[in-house]
Order: sequence, then C-alpha cells, then structure tokens
Amino acid sequence: MLSITATDILEAQKRLNGVATRTAILSNTFLNDHFHSEIFLKCELFQPIGAFKIRGAGNFAWRLSDEERQRGFVTHSSGNHAQAVAYMAHKMNTKAWIVMPSNASRTKVLATKRWGAVVIDCEPTIAAREAGAEQLRKEHDATIIPPFDHEWIMEGQATASLELLQEVDDVDVLLAPLGGGGLLSGTALSARYFGKVGLNVVGVEPETAADGKMGLAKGKRVESLSTNTVADGLRTTVGRLPFEVLKTEKVEVITASDEAIMRWQRRFWNELKLIMEPSSAVVFAAMDDEPMRWAGQRIGAIITGGNAEISALR
Amino acid sequence: MLSITATDILEAQKRLNGVATRTAILSNTFLNDHFHSEIFLKCELFQPIGAFKIRGAGNFAWRLSDEERQRGFVTHSSGNHAQAVAYMAHKMNTKAWIVMPSNASRTKVLATKRWGAVVIDCEPTIAAREAGAEQLRKEHDATIIPPFDHEWIMEGQATASLELLQEVDDVDVLLAPLGGGGLLSGTALSARYFGKVGLNVVGVEPETAADGKMGLAKGKRVESLSTNTVADGLRTTVGRLPFEVLKTEKVEVITASDEAIMRWQRRFWNELKLIMEPSSAVVFAAMDDEPMRWAGQRIGAIITGGNAEISALR
Repeated sequence: MLSITATDILEAQKRLNGVATRTAILSNTFLNDHFHSEIFLKCELFQPIGAFKIRGAGNFAWRLSDEERQRGFVTHSSGNHAQAVAYMAHKMNTKAWIVMPSNASRTKVLATKRWGAVVIDCEPTIAAREAGAEQLRKEHDATIIPPFDHEWIMEGQATASLELLQEVDDVDVLLAPLGGGGLLSGTALSARYFGKVGLNVVGVEPETAADGKMGLAKGKRVESLSTNTVADGLRTTVGRLPFEVLKTEKVEVITASDEAIMRWQRRFWNELKLIMEPSSAVVFAAMDDEPMRWAGQRIGAIITGGNAEISALR
Repeated sequence: MLSITATDILEAQKRLNGVATRTAILSNTFLNDHFHSEIFLKCELFQPIGAFKIRGAGNFAWRLSDEERQRGFVTHSSGNHAQAVAYMAHKMNTKAWIVMPSNASRTKVLATKRWGAVVIDCEPTIAAREAGAEQLRKEHDATIIPPFDHEWIMEGQATASLELLQEVDDVDVLLAPLGGGGLLSGTALSARYFGKVGLNVVGVEPETAADGKMGLAKGKRVESLSTNTVADGLRTTVGRLPFEVLKTEKVEVITASDEAIMRWQRRFWNELKLIMEPSSAVVFAAMDDEPMRWAGQRIGAIITGGNAEISALR
C-alpha cells in the first residue's frame, strides 16, 4: 500500500537541493486578465533539462545506495525522462543507458546524449522498450529508474507544487497535466499536506488521451490507450500507484483538444515569451473551455516543460 | 544641461506602479556555467508589450498634465516604442496616433493597432516619419512622445536597472544593449546612484551599428548610420542627451556580429526557453567574444524585449 507522507516530500525537497532548480514562479497580466484570476506559473521549463522530470529522477537516484549509484542507471523513454536520467548520471558521475524508440525525435536523442548517456535504439513498441531496458539492467547490474509508477518518483514530482505552496499564499486551485500521473499524484499529495483546506486539484489530459478521466469515472484504471495527440508527453496511460492517489484524493480531470493546445502554445510565445511544450499548454487550453470558472480565484499552474520543436509554432 | 537625479529615478518608479510590470529577475544554470559567473537577467520581455519601452513612455505620459494626456499622444516608430505609446494611451483612456514606415513588420503594426492606436503609414525615411508625426501633432494638438532623446524617457528606462539593483546585491557589471541610448544612459545613471562603487556599465551594439562605440572613442557623436543588422531595435544612432551621459559616465561599449546574435537567440530558445529578440541577444553574443572576462563576477543583464519573429529561429 502506498504511503507518501508530508515528511517524505520535504525530505525529497532537501535531496533535490543542488540538483533541481528552485524554479521561478511567474505572473502575467495577459493571463490574469484573460481568466479574470490570479495565476501563478511554476516554471519547470526552466529546469536544466527543460522539464520537471529531473525532480522524480533526482529523488530516486539519491534514494539509492552509493553502490547502486555507482553501477549506473537504466531507463526507456522517448522524452524528458530520458534526459532527466541522463542528467542525473552526469551530475553523479556515473553511467546511464537509455533505450529510446527508433521514432524518437532527433532533438531529444541529441539532448540525452549530450549528458554522456549511452542511447540504445529499439523498435517503437513498449514490449521492445521494456525488453531492452531489462537486458541492460542485467548486463550492467544497473538500476532501472521508472518514469512515474514509483513512490520515489511521485515524492520528487510533488516538490514542484510544494515549492509553489511555500511561496504563494491562499491558493484555491492547482492545475497540472496528466500523463503517467507522477506529477499529478504528487501535486494532489502536496495539496493535501501543504495547501489550505478546500484547495482543489485539477488534472488535464488531451481529449484523445483521456484514460485518466475515464478511469476515474469508472473507478478502474484504463490500461491501454492509442493516441497521437500533439501533447507527446501525455500519450501514456496513468500508472498504477498514481491512479490510486488520484482516486483516493478525488482529483478532477478535464480535457482539451489538440487545436486548443496548439493555440495556447502559440499564445505563450506571443504574449508571455515562454516556450512551453504542448504537454504544458494543455492546462490553459482546458481552462479556456470554461473561462469563467476560474474568475476571482488564486490559481497555481505547473508549466511542466519547454522542450518544444520550433516547427510546431509556425 | 541634463540633470537626472536619484530622486527623479525613484519618482519615475512610483509613477510606473500599475503601468509597467516589476519584471522577474531570473538566473539560469546553463548561462552561469557558460560564463563561469552569476548572471541575473532582468526580464523586460515579460512587460505587457513585450519590451522595456513601456517604462520610458509610461513615465513621460504621467509627467504630462491631465489636459495634455486627454489630447493624446503622437509618435513615429517601426518597433516597440510604437506599442509602448499605444499601450499607454489605452491605459489612460486617451488617443494615440502612430506613424509607422510602410516597411514595418505586419506583426508590429497589428500589435500597435491592438491597443486601439491609429496607425498612419508613411515612406520609410526619417524625414517622412518626422513630417508625419509633426503634422499629426498640429492637427490634434497632441503631444509627441519621443523614443529616447528626452530626460523623461531616460528616467523611465533607468527604472529597469534600478529594480535589478534593488533586488540583487553586490552587482559587479551591468550590461544593456545600445540603440538610441535611452536604456543604456538610464542604466549608467542607476549604476551611479544605486550600484556599488566600481560597478561597471557596459553597452552592446551590433558590429554594423557601432556608432556609439565610434562616437565615444572620438568624443563626438556619430549622427548618421546605415545598417541592416538583424537587431532591428538597434539600427538607430545614439541620441544627443544619452550620448552626453554615456560620455560623462565613461561607459564602455562592446560589439557582436549578426551571426553570433542569431546563435544566442537560438540558444535562449533551446536552453532558457525564453523568446528574446535579436536586439537583446546582442548582449550575450558580445560577452561570448571574451568569455573569460566575466568569470567570478556578479552580472546584471537586461533582456530588453521578446518581440521576435518565429521565422528568425529556424
């Protein structure tokens, strides 16, 4: 049974000192005017790898023994988690082997290699990815760092909203994207422990990747999903442990269309001068479906990452 | 004779309360590692119009009498100053007539019109622009808000570095781009009044628009310039009053190539997730010419604006 306490999250925050950046929290008049509310943006796109994933991977890596760290890390990922694990290995002066599907973007492969990780290509299926990672784990006696379905990852991701709640008083709503659920479950736990009574946590999914919303409605996790949403970080299904937290904490999930996601990505470029990835834009796209719902409230929103392709903004 | 006191700058700051945003000051590990220093970015790209120009125009507009404000504002500009004047008119519920050259970018014309300003096309020459503005001034009995060559503008622009020095201790160097000189002269004055003894102010120009550097070397202002640098905000020559300040304060000016400017614009996209215009990128491009000069220092740099075209980043 999962049990992450307030102390666990505060300990994770200490572990991440010197690893993850305590990112800025920005406000913006355009955004506040648009939603008639006060919005506080937790800017995880300013992390060294351009995304919040460094928190979970960093906490996990520091939770290991020295011996385990020395033997190195393994993971499979096509996205920001690959970079996070590679970055942690670099910071800890150890090795990382990352299995990446052959259709992963060249930008993301290069970004992962940049930190000295060994990147191993595989067929773009989950089975091939998992088999590749397992083989590397055995071969090098290394530790697999999972992307979301693990307490240590969830603890780490929870520190993003912890920091927001430490710096901003009287938050009414916290919004975060929902992919594998590491971040959103961590957000729900931080809200419970560090937010005011009645603080509402809202997760956001692309319309075509709404397995979390469907699963929570039925009380049963959806285990597979086929989607090609532009929000590439959210194409996965919610993990087992995160799902339990979202269910227990009665987290609401709302959705947005790909068209609205792309529109908000461009708006952030034009109005806020921030490069946000589609998997972060989903939050504002969904808010905009019910624009008056947020009026008069103090809202925390996590901008999860900024690893977007320039071509997406044309 | 020009005389802007510390009190004048502090008064300008009060006037700008509610008009200009007190913009965030960001740090970034990539940038600090690259220059082996601590760099504090004053993010003027987060202003409502995406650039610092709102400070000078805002201070100027509030320096006028109620009657003058009611009669409205006139200016000529192809860039951020046009938006700043239009925005101030909008905020003050008055009118703005903006003369813009026929070759101004469509994006900037639309951004100016968005605030309700009347945009008047003219031939793309300084003579035509000035004649157009003068005609509008007479016709509407309105007030011309100049882009840089005026004490009230310089006072306003000085508040950007004032805020930086209020929030960051022990700054060794302040860097700002040099175009008309409103910002850089204001920076030099704020450095004198609010910085530590020995705080060094460095201005930065594109190589092909180095009229400031040449003029200061000779002790005599260069009055005309022909350049097509990508840093479109810096194509103008330094104004009369700003030049006097830069000369008196012995401000050093360094330069950067267009190629380096574009490289740093892309780097900010990739590493910092910020959309910076070429006229801001010039600072980091020039720093990179002498990368070890900045080692171990605490450096304030003003990111003047973020009104860049997407196509520039490909």
